[in-house]
Amino acid sequence: MRIEIQITSQPIDGRCELPKEFCSDAGARAEFSGVVRNKENGRVITALEYEAYLPMAKKVMREIIEDIGRNHPCQSVRVTHRIGIVPVGETAIHIMVTARHRAEAFAMLTEFMNRLKQDVPIWKRRALSGDELEALKKS
Amino acid sequence: MRIEIQITSQPIDGRCELPKEFCSDAGARAEFSGVVRNKENGRVITALEYEAYLPMAKKVMREIIEDIGRNHPCQSVRVTHRIGIVPVGETAIHIMVTARHRAEAFAMLTEFMNRLKQDVPIWKRRALSGDELEALKKS
Repeated sequence: MRIEIQITSQPIDGRCELPKEFCSDAGARAEFSGVVRNKENGRVITALEYEAYLPMAKKVMREIIEDIGRNHPCQSVRVTHRIGIVPVGETAIHIMVTARHRAEAFAMLTEFMNRLKQDVPIWKRRALSGDELEALKKS
Repeated sequence: MRIEIQITSQPIDGRCELPKEFCSDAGARAEFSGVVRNKENGRVITALEYEAYLPMAKKVMREIIEDIGRNHPCQSVRVTHRIGIVPVGETAIHIMVTARHRAEAFAMLTEFMNRLKQDVPIWKRRALSGDELEALKKS
């Protein structure tokens, strides 16, 4: 199982294709993008700020993927998590999985996302209104 | 729930983005691509040929999506199914779902794919070896 994990402060282009060698025998490709919504706890927001404990975050994500892969063997998993300010409508996390069959790919996606929220040291530091975002840009 | 269904003999570019109005309040975008594998029933192949009973296929797909949407409300579902000759490594079906939260999006993807195989009159007409594909191109 080929695993690629990236944590970045740049916008995520979820549309990047996997390199060809990932896909030779893959019958299923599944993807999930978690996008920042315009509301957080009932309040209208403009952006979320994500923080990560970098020394641990990548390591824990890899362990989770390897663990899920024991029951649901996939061919490749690529995870990209954005940190810092992520405006509404932009992708905070993207995961792409290839597998021979769709069942493994769906299982990897859903279980990874559940465990990401529980176990990986990446968190929403704060939600920003439009005014707060403007003030931050000027500072 | 906005539904778009397309049956096409052209290659699928699964990477097309949803129009902006699809996504305003969407926190989750999930996608699945079913790709032709290089083996069919143990035999090495070069392509699959898909056929559809067109008057029914789109209608049944829409009914399935509406039915799943009653339990798992999503914001948009776009399905593209390719028919005719689909070479190994190319996408035969692509589905993209947006929803507020990921649970609905994952449920729509997985249930739709299960019911597609059972209920929609689109089928693999034949598997083609390299020689058969060449002969077909020349004829």
